[in-house]
Amino acid sequence: MAIIQATIITIGDELLIGQVIDTNSAWMAQELNKAGIRVARRVAVGDVWDEIWNALDEESRHADIILLTGGLGPTADDITKPLLCKYFGGKLIIDEKAKENVVNIFKRLNRPMIERNLLQAEVPDNCTVIQNARGTAPGMWFEKDGKIYVSMPGVPHEMKGMMENYVIPELSKKMQLPVIAHRTLLTAGVGESFLADLIQDFEKALPAHIKLAYLPNYGMVRLRLSSSGFDKEAIENEIELQFAQLQLQVAAYLVTNVDEPMEEVVGKLLLSKNKTMCTAESCTGGYIAHLLTSIPGSSAFYDGSVVSYSYGAKEDLLNVDHQVLLNKGAVSEEVVTAMAKGALQNIKSDFVIAVSGIMGPGGGMSEKPVGTVWVAIGSKEKIETQKLFFRFDRMRNIQLTAVTTLNLLRKFILEQS
Amino acid sequence: MAIIQATIITIGDELLIGQVIDTNSAWMAQELNKAGIRVARRVAVGDVWDEIWNALDEESRHADIILLTGGLGPTADDITKPLLCKYFGGKLIIDEKAKENVVNIFKRLNRPMIERNLLQAEVPDNCTVIQNARGTAPGMWFEKDGKIYVSMPGVPHEMKGMMENYVIPELSKKMQLPVIAHRTLLTAGVGESFLADLIQDFEKALPAHIKLAYLPNYGMVRLRLSSSGFDKEAIENEIELQFAQLQLQVAAYLVTNVDEPMEEVVGKLLLSKNKTMCTAESCTGGYIAHLLTSIPGSSAFYDGSVVSYSYGAKEDLLNVDHQVLLNKGAVSEEVVTAMAKGALQNIKSDFVIAVSGIMGPGGGMSEKPVGTVWVAIGSKEKIETQKLFFRFDRMRNIQLTAVTTLNLLRKFILEQS
Repeated sequence: MAIIQATIITIGDELLIGQVIDTNSAWMAQELNKAGIRVARRVAVGDVWDEIWNALDEESRHADIILLTGGLGPTADDITKPLLCKYFGGKLIIDEKAKENVVNIFKRLNRPMIERNLLQAEVPDNCTVIQNARGTAPGMWFEKDGKIYVSMPGVPHEMKGMMENYVIPELSKKMQLPVIAHRTLLTAGVGESFLADLIQDFEKALPAHIKLAYLPNYGMVRLRLSSSGFDKEAIENEIELQFAQLQLQVAAYLVTNVDEPMEEVVGKLLLSKNKTMCTAESCTGGYIAHLLTSIPGSSAFYDGSVVSYSYGAKEDLLNVDHQVLLNKGAVSEEVVTAMAKGALQNIKSDFVIAVSGIMGPGGGMSEKPVGTVWVAIGSKEKIETQKLFFRFDRMRNIQLTAVTTLNLLRKFILEQS
Repeated sequence: MAIIQATIITIGDELLIGQVIDTNSAWMAQELNKAGIRVARRVAVGDVWDEIWNALDEESRHADIILLTGGLGPTADDITKPLLCKYFGGKLIIDEKAKENVVNIFKRLNRPMIERNLLQAEVPDNCTVIQNARGTAPGMWFEKDGKIYVSMPGVPHEMKGMMENYVIPELSKKMQLPVIAHRTLLTAGVGESFLADLIQDFEKALPAHIKLAYLPNYGMVRLRLSSSGFDKEAIENEIELQFAQLQLQVAAYLVTNVDEPMEEVVGKLLLSKNKTMCTAESCTGGYIAHLLTSIPGSSAFYDGSVVSYSYGAKEDLLNVDHQVLLNKGAVSEEVVTAMAKGALQNIKSDFVIAVSGIMGPGGGMSEKPVGTVWVAIGSKEKIETQKLFFRFDRMRNIQLTAVTTLNLLRKFILEQS
């Protein structure tokens, strides 16, 4: 039986002029994959009648399932609903449940409702209406010539609600879906080419239906094995065996054997040891704190951060000596060591990361060019320092500093035990 | 003369299983737009020979320029280069300049180079090679039947270097490009439907070649006017006139008349008044600090943050009274007020934002459900508090809290002057 293929069509001029980054497609692709549906293509088109129409025609030749997001708002530039109505030969009618939903939402928010809001409850009479528990625009499910078309709003949490509660369960009911299995591991401290050489025999010996992918990411490389088929147990056993092999091959560089970001690896390590950490951040400006606190429940292993952008904050909140700041400069081994000690003392955690650097584009000096970062990591017993250098733009330098220092702390914690 | 149309094809299984979010396309679309090239479609395909080949066939029917990113690495899953070689009927040869570049990069990084790395210097003999100043994989420029095809690496900063230094300048030389003009403003405190009603007469009276788009974003709505043509002055004058009208229409809700994020609006406001701010963040976990410090030069208006995740950090770094924490709880008007005062005192800024809330998914209580946020903003002279409520997932609640409180501070600063 053939693999079920899906296409994701995202609609909106904002995608084509680069005003917004499309995060919906990645999330949808993950969910479809988990359900055993392969996403073969993702297409973005503008709010242009012919281009949306053509995309529907073309993608229905490529895929069994066509998922659309966006273009369902109450304003004149949202043409997707009338277009779908015409494409599938229906006419617009008011859906009473969708209308009730719109009325209730405005009541709950205590906002005046205007006529235009009620237009959200209009749907083509030849679709199955997908009620929107998180917003006013209903979703629409059409079937034609054996293909399924689902249109959802572009607002991420509304789309996610529909996907989780209706679309994925319905697709699973209607189609015999295969198992798609992925296993991903994370390596650090080694380049993609070096890894490829290291595991070339393993890669050559892989069965043809198992794919290996290299995913470089912030100075680290993720390796992913993928397979699919209808015998769930066989597929999963086979990929587990190969994945065990792969882990052995890259053991020297292995960070984790699940697909999770570095901050989660560090968080879980701390939890497993019943320890906490804090941060003292100058150049990363709170980004390390943000990564760690993005994890639900992070208060169990993370105590807080001092984001010491000014000299004053370094002195008053981290006890850094004024003279040391003046003599050595904020980006120095002495200052970052003092920041680490001050944070441990004031925030009272078991472990600390302190960073001070120059992220660019301005602020570079001949002896301390843009990209220079001093890092101190450690505990009350021991502080280790290191000078790092990154050569990218501000945001990427910040991200690389965060992930690299979290990895340094991970190794430090492992060495202590 | 017709508008020049481009398609962006991104290649990589990681895009189709949702393992990475495609940020390249948005950046590329912005640059192409600025240069007067309309992006008509964006397509993502996997590392599959036939699918890449089909995408090339199809997109060359839609567009004049086809830009590809990804799939150019040194590993076996990277098939784009041999495919392009075959598609355009060339054969692979070593490019001496690209080889020299690979050798130099490994020398500079002081890493051992292996045979596989040199494969990066192979290029089809019928392309114009685009040297890569930031990495090992060269770009390739092909022309066929009046269409231009450019293949670049997927690593963002490598792709950006090629686009800025070669691709955009070359396209501008080879084609007579029109002017594409956009003007965007940001509103807050009002929904999309309400705005649409407010400006419906303006919208109806717009000339057909000027488009108005509504872009909802973190509880705010951006409005964008777009136009294009070959008479630069006429196009720009006309859009300026309409944009001035639009600003008048939405004056009551206008945050800024340039397309910039809230943190930049606040940063510029502080700079214009020669003032600084600090933050005391519990539930946002450093995200407000991160937004502000993402702006180059932010040290001129931002002093720092205390990310006080634990009770201890609130007490020791922000002078919050232990008894108040116990009696009122961390998420309370009293605690957030004390956090604001403590931050102003210890970090010594002119203005402050303090937040404490429950972002979810856990931690909710009947009287303080998930999504409850207490915020205090102000200065030494005056602190204002407000209780907010958001009903989304953890990350979105954090983002909404950050943007909403920055907007509250913006209004506070404006009221003071």
